[in-house]
Amino acid sequence: MNPTVNLDCFMSPRSVAVIGVSRKTGKGSFNLIENMLAFGYEGDIYPVNPMADEILGFRTYGAVSEIGKPVDLAVVSTPREQIPAVVEECARVGIEAAIIVPQGFADADEVGKGLQRELSRIARQRGIRLMGPNTLGTVNAFSGFTSSFMPLRREKVPIGVICQSGIFLVGSTLFTGMTGKGIDLGNGCDLDFADALEYFGQDHDIRVIFMHIEGLDHGRRLLDVAKRVCMKKPVIAFKTARTEAGAHSAASHSGAMAGAYDICRSALEQAGVMVISDPAEIADITKAMLRLHPMQGNRVAIVTFTGAGGIILIDALTTCGLKLAVLSSQTLSRVAALSPSWLTVQNPLDVWPALMVHGMEHVYPAVLRSVLEDPGVDGVICIAIAPDLPDQAYLDATGAIEQVADACPKKPVVAWLYGANQECVSRNLERSGTVISVAALPRAARVLEALYRRHLFLRQTAPYIPGKPTG
Amino acid sequence: MNPTVNLDCFMSPRSVAVIGVSRKTGKGSFNLIENMLAFGYEGDIYPVNPMADEILGFRTYGAVSEIGKPVDLAVVSTPREQIPAVVEECARVGIEAAIIVPQGFADADEVGKGLQRELSRIARQRGIRLMGPNTLGTVNAFSGFTSSFMPLRREKVPIGVICQSGIFLVGSTLFTGMTGKGIDLGNGCDLDFADALEYFGQDHDIRVIFMHIEGLDHGRRLLDVAKRVCMKKPVIAFKTARTEAGAHSAASHSGAMAGAYDICRSALEQAGVMVISDPAEIADITKAMLRLHPMQGNRVAIVTFTGAGGIILIDALTTCGLKLAVLSSQTLSRVAALSPSWLTVQNPLDVWPALMVHGMEHVYPAVLRSVLEDPGVDGVICIAIAPDLPDQAYLDATGAIEQVADACPKKPVVAWLYGANQECVSRNLERSGTVISVAALPRAARVLEALYRRHLFLRQTAPYIPGKPTG
Repeated sequence: MNPTVNLDCFMSPRSVAVIGVSRKTGKGSFNLIENMLAFGYEGDIYPVNPMADEILGFRTYGAVSEIGKPVDLAVVSTPREQIPAVVEECARVGIEAAIIVPQGFADADEVGKGLQRELSRIARQRGIRLMGPNTLGTVNAFSGFTSSFMPLRREKVPIGVICQSGIFLVGSTLFTGMTGKGIDLGNGCDLDFADALEYFGQDHDIRVIFMHIEGLDHGRRLLDVAKRVCMKKPVIAFKTARTEAGAHSAASHSGAMAGAYDICRSALEQAGVMVISDPAEIADITKAMLRLHPMQGNRVAIVTFTGAGGIILIDALTTCGLKLAVLSSQTLSRVAALSPSWLTVQNPLDVWPALMVHGMEHVYPAVLRSVLEDPGVDGVICIAIAPDLPDQAYLDATGAIEQVADACPKKPVVAWLYGANQECVSRNLERSGTVISVAALPRAARVLEALYRRHLFLRQTAPYIPGKPTG
Repeated sequence: MNPTVNLDCFMSPRSVAVIGVSRKTGKGSFNLIENMLAFGYEGDIYPVNPMADEILGFRTYGAVSEIGKPVDLAVVSTPREQIPAVVEECARVGIEAAIIVPQGFADADEVGKGLQRELSRIARQRGIRLMGPNTLGTVNAFSGFTSSFMPLRREKVPIGVICQSGIFLVGSTLFTGMTGKGIDLGNGCDLDFADALEYFGQDHDIRVIFMHIEGLDHGRRLLDVAKRVCMKKPVIAFKTARTEAGAHSAASHSGAMAGAYDICRSALEQAGVMVISDPAEIADITKAMLRLHPMQGNRVAIVTFTGAGGIILIDALTTCGLKLAVLSSQTLSRVAALSPSWLTVQNPLDVWPALMVHGMEHVYPAVLRSVLEDPGVDGVICIAIAPDLPDQAYLDATGAIEQVADACPKKPVVAWLYGANQECVSRNLERSGTVISVAALPRAARVLEALYRRHLFLRQTAPYIPGKPTG
């Protein structure tokens, strides 16, 4: 098989044959053409359904052979038994790409497993490339195409998602936050992770790639591709089926072998992929990779309103292999000049006593600037209040954080804001694009760890062992 | 010292002397009386400030000895050097309780440490009970009292918070979710965890207790109290300063010794306390303890729209020492009757194929009821969609989840809803009070683990080893 597959037919087809599309439309019908139109697809659509003359205003064909015009992509949703013959016919009429939507193949019984082997054989012999079965297919917010029968939001963000389940497209808010382009490999009877990763690696619309990996069949080829792609753009992976019980269940979901987690993880990490085990961290790290500079060392400064928050964070930093920066005497004396004499000024920098006396605007920008300019500091975490009420502006450090971080883009700044208004204040803080804000404090440390690992990978330094401070 | 201290004077004082209160009021002044009034305090307030005649309409006294009326509680905010003398004077005029707000004691330099020793000595010798120093003091949404100079929300929820930092009161949305009554022990020169825990243990307004523990001085006494209180109500602890670096920093925050984390954790767990290490889980577990029944075994069923979600969850369940329930043939055949013949019906129950054919209302309630009535199931996790748009009601399982869970209150039901609308749909789902919803999937497993451990503690069965399935 061609090692670099052009997936343009899957992502931006000029014309689509939708085979086995339902005559039912409207709520709960999961009509694929209806969803395609709602998403904004403007190419040609050829419904294939021998039982109908017209679907959603489109003339309907009895078979793909009757279309008689060039078709870039077939999206197939017929009953599973008919699919091998349908795909053969597509190949015969010159269609080079097909998405096989239905379940009931390697994810199901012996009959299904046999049908999937048949699909793999057809792809190999006829040269038609297949995505799925058991897939939502693709989504492309840039071209306006999707083969998903589930409603999806369209947002032109430079994030490419490769997954083995539609949940990462339907529920992307909870994972990558957004999806600019997505490929659901499903059971992967033909196209696999390496193909999709190679494609997004060369796609100028995509700046960060996320992969949900349940199981892997062609691990070595993926690692070869990953090594190349990771040099160009960050690749994040969420590996599931980590436990024996999870792997057992995966065999009947996507039909893939999960393999030993530790081996898989370390192989991916050596190739430069960031492997995440807590799904709550996916959005943070995706956002960080898009917006923040890799962190050039592991020395972190904390600017905090609360000693307790600093301590929670130190626990997390230590666990992530990062360490507390030793601040320069210049930085320390600047902060000491604003603080009461009894305060032991050290990292974490507790700025609350200074704020109480001098007020936010006289303290926060000066302290954060000193810290970011300190040559012993590689990144900063700000612990501050998300003011609850509009009249609590005197408690609001976010304006200062945004402004100072903007001026020092080479050192990453991550904020954790506490209070009932966290979500709203965080969203405002992130508008400038040079700071990110996390929902839970330990996740700030995980973000900086990822940015540090990205730096180490790019510099091709010695392998980094998590949990062991390197400096 | 009296082992059971009545903290009513601290929580619901009829009269308060506010010593060292500022004349400044309004935004950014952190005026303690202003905040007390905003919170709804209706008792008598006696400001003590020799530099003023009147503060916020209250007659001001030059010293506590001039008040000449009964005072339940003194809240002290003078410069630190004056505080031992102020507390002596309070004791002399018969005040039995004082909150020492300022920083600069064991959290600071040698002078501060000496002053704190002095405060401990006065408390011991004069019988006056002291909270702090370095504290916001108390908050009581039921009585309407707070000594906090930071604005707090007032919500009469049955959650008691004991902490060593005001962040758990100011930022409670991000920790316990809400605070009905709170005690910030600060540096703990006199009153400590055992006192506060004993008090909340006997408080009928409080049904769940949360403790933020940075360091512990009287561990043995706390464990004795915890053992008794945990038999009556759930106690959750978030232990920080877990790492060496964190413990080192804690010494200069609350001035407490952190001790070895593993020993502390296992001692607390043996006493029945639920120890949490990820702050993101505090709100989930607090909510679960308030609303759900302890889980009487470790056999969990998963009802899911997505195979991939089921697999993520199996990984988490295994890590938490829980296991996949083996469903009865009756349950399996009920689900099989609704599903396509190729589907291998097993736990996790993927109901998506059945939904696609029969629709939500014919599938979801029947399946969930079968599972909850299955004698081999102790708890259920539902993975479903949080519909994004109002016209996606055909995708909404939350009505069915709520209704069925309501009818089976003895088995806990936890939901994870995916989609952009998660927060809003989750909030609606939780209104009935018999289901809880988590933001990230692995947290559903952590909640059930906590409910199972609660059951084991109450039954006084063999100690439970996390990570090792017991059945």
